[in-house]
Amino acid sequence: MNAQIISIGDELLIGQTVNTNASFVGAKLTDIGVEVKKVITTSDEMDAILSDLDTALQRSDIVIVTGGLGPTHDDITREAICRFFKCGMREDPDVLEDIKERFNRFGRPLTPTNKDQAMVPECCEAIRNFNGTAPGFWIEQNGKIVAVMPGVPREMQAMMENFVIPNIKARYADKLRQIVRLNILTTGIAESNLFDKLSPVDEVLKDVKVAFLPNLGGVKIRLTGEGSSLDEAREKVDAASQQVRLHVGRYVYGTGEDELSQVIGNLLKDRQMTIAVAESCTGGNISNMITDRSGSSEYFERGVIAYSNAAKVEILQVDEDLIQMKGAVSEEVALEMAKGVRSISGTDLGVSITGILGPKGATTTKPVGLIYIAVASHENAVVKKYNFGGTRLENKIRSTYAALELVRKFILGIPVEA
Amino acid sequence: MNAQIISIGDELLIGQTVNTNASFVGAKLTDIGVEVKKVITTSDEMDAILSDLDTALQRSDIVIVTGGLGPTHDDITREAICRFFKCGMREDPDVLEDIKERFNRFGRPLTPTNKDQAMVPECCEAIRNFNGTAPGFWIEQNGKIVAVMPGVPREMQAMMENFVIPNIKARYADKLRQIVRLNILTTGIAESNLFDKLSPVDEVLKDVKVAFLPNLGGVKIRLTGEGSSLDEAREKVDAASQQVRLHVGRYVYGTGEDELSQVIGNLLKDRQMTIAVAESCTGGNISNMITDRSGSSEYFERGVIAYSNAAKVEILQVDEDLIQMKGAVSEEVALEMAKGVRSISGTDLGVSITGILGPKGATTTKPVGLIYIAVASHENAVVKKYNFGGTRLENKIRSTYAALELVRKFILGIPVEA
Repeated sequence: MNAQIISIGDELLIGQTVNTNASFVGAKLTDIGVEVKKVITTSDEMDAILSDLDTALQRSDIVIVTGGLGPTHDDITREAICRFFKCGMREDPDVLEDIKERFNRFGRPLTPTNKDQAMVPECCEAIRNFNGTAPGFWIEQNGKIVAVMPGVPREMQAMMENFVIPNIKARYADKLRQIVRLNILTTGIAESNLFDKLSPVDEVLKDVKVAFLPNLGGVKIRLTGEGSSLDEAREKVDAASQQVRLHVGRYVYGTGEDELSQVIGNLLKDRQMTIAVAESCTGGNISNMITDRSGSSEYFERGVIAYSNAAKVEILQVDEDLIQMKGAVSEEVALEMAKGVRSISGTDLGVSITGILGPKGATTTKPVGLIYIAVASHENAVVKKYNFGGTRLENKIRSTYAALELVRKFILGIPVEA
Repeated sequence: MNAQIISIGDELLIGQTVNTNASFVGAKLTDIGVEVKKVITTSDEMDAILSDLDTALQRSDIVIVTGGLGPTHDDITREAICRFFKCGMREDPDVLEDIKERFNRFGRPLTPTNKDQAMVPECCEAIRNFNGTAPGFWIEQNGKIVAVMPGVPREMQAMMENFVIPNIKARYADKLRQIVRLNILTTGIAESNLFDKLSPVDEVLKDVKVAFLPNLGGVKIRLTGEGSSLDEAREKVDAASQQVRLHVGRYVYGTGEDELSQVIGNLLKDRQMTIAVAESCTGGNISNMITDRSGSSEYFERGVIAYSNAAKVEILQVDEDLIQMKGAVSEEVALEMAKGVRSISGTDLGVSITGILGPKGATTTKPVGLIYIAVASHENAVVKKYNFGGTRLENKIRSTYAALELVRKFILGIPVEA
């Protein structure tokens, strides 16, 4: 079974609205084993809509249309459906009741414009809208399905979950593929290195589809397994997942939607440990990410953003002479900062960062992107040097992830190369 | 002039990634007067890509392709371009230099996989990538343009702004409509209130198209003027812009791409003032935003994330009894924090925030979303109470913007309602 999505609306084409509806519909269809082949975003023009419907229906079993069902002049999707299926309109009594009830509830009078929304194409079953006034349309013809829904996300989402998905499942129970998908999250390794370590991908990760999805925080490895049963699909993904961990496990910090800050939060909570943060170049971003998580006050005690040398000396008790001798961006100062923040906070761990994000601030011996990160406990400490060479903000994000990753390795006792 | 956008990548179809690239490209093309007719999102399959290229090129003057240019096996856009234009590949010396230079900068060895990225279709001019390794391709044929770029947003965005848009403008100067667009940035006022204060919009802001674009940091008012000449379009937008400032000027902090943190940075720099930050609930986000700007070390001295009461007392010198009496989330503690961080840092200004972001931490008298923000100078101080009622992360972003806005008003002497 495969599908196409047609998103209607000029606001999508001119970039005023991001097409989150297509992602939502795509994810829901994928979840039940329908393969989404294409998303077509098209303008509020009759000819364009009719031609896209025609093409989509020729190539796919299921066509999902969103947008253009509102009450104003530029909403022409309903008329397009009538023209395409060569049918007239009928008033739907359930929909009319829904609209009346809605206006009654809000204490507003029903206008002819509102009442007109109870008119639906004769060829369709109406999809009722409990979050707005415009109904959706469900059309079955020649073994194919067209579902039409409003573009307002929460109206569309409710219709999709309560009507469209259950009906597709009921209609095509025997034809849906069984799919299992797993995202394995890595950090601290470039996409190309990851690829090389897992090569030849076809042999190392066989029987699954593999995609590498990079962002500043790391690279996501997406494994997709398919089978005649869910168990078979899951087995394939599990086997591939084990291979990933075997080859590049030291870079894997989580799976699915895990966030590195959450992973660390859970590690700290499980061990009843606390942490304090001393940041220079990242300017608060490490603490900011840690405190994004609800409940972070259980393990995050305080953070110090020691941007100036004075702050490093006064709050973190870094030796002023050491800064003079080695420079604020140095292994030695990073270590002192981590130990200092831990000691003044009375926490189990201290993490620190100092570096040059750029574009200014480089010296002959210290280039933009040079970063030192240290983690200290009562007994132990590590410090690591990094070279990031991106823009200021890229370096900020990359080094924030690097700091969180160093904390994770420190807690788990994973050895760190210098 | 019209265009189609082809977005390549299974992750877009299965809903794993939202297609923000298409919105970015759509907005940029619209800005220079190119009409975007369609966005086609398609899978990483050769036949699909070839057929979409064919259809798009038949119907449009410009085709923008993003995605599928990475170094791994599922990236097949480069080969698709070669097949479509029936050409081979050549090694581009500039691109090879860029890649070598990049790996050199990061201190990483060049693998054959990386080197292969310097191979480009013979039919194209390479678009150099200063934010990554994969180059883009610029192809002109029969008076039409195909531009191909990587799917990584920051790489694509830089290529679009620095190469594709200027080249389209140069190529089609006489055929583009004359459009001027201005974003006026507001914060501290809801979209509906803004709309009411500018109503009736057709009369107050005449001869321009107006859009209100809300996000967590505030509401952007987008004015679009069109004319037979650029001057005529600009005059319309200028007139409307003056009306906006007349009616809602006190909420306007900037225009265009201004960031509130940058606006404050400039104010501080112009006045040779310095600032220190004391955060509780925002966990470092205020300092983080301020230090996103290059050169922020000229005015940002330090930040303290006093998550625990101990940190408030030990570092910020807040009176322990005051916290006991009034609670950590109180007007009084906010004021003490702002005064304390200013005093220990020796800066001109201190800004502080304390509040309950949720979802946990509310009490009978202090609900989720209750936030106090204070700003102090040597002579003066203000404190303001806010009630945000969103999710944890929404409240974090909203209150960060509110703090920056309070600093802006304090510096400019704009009165603050309590």
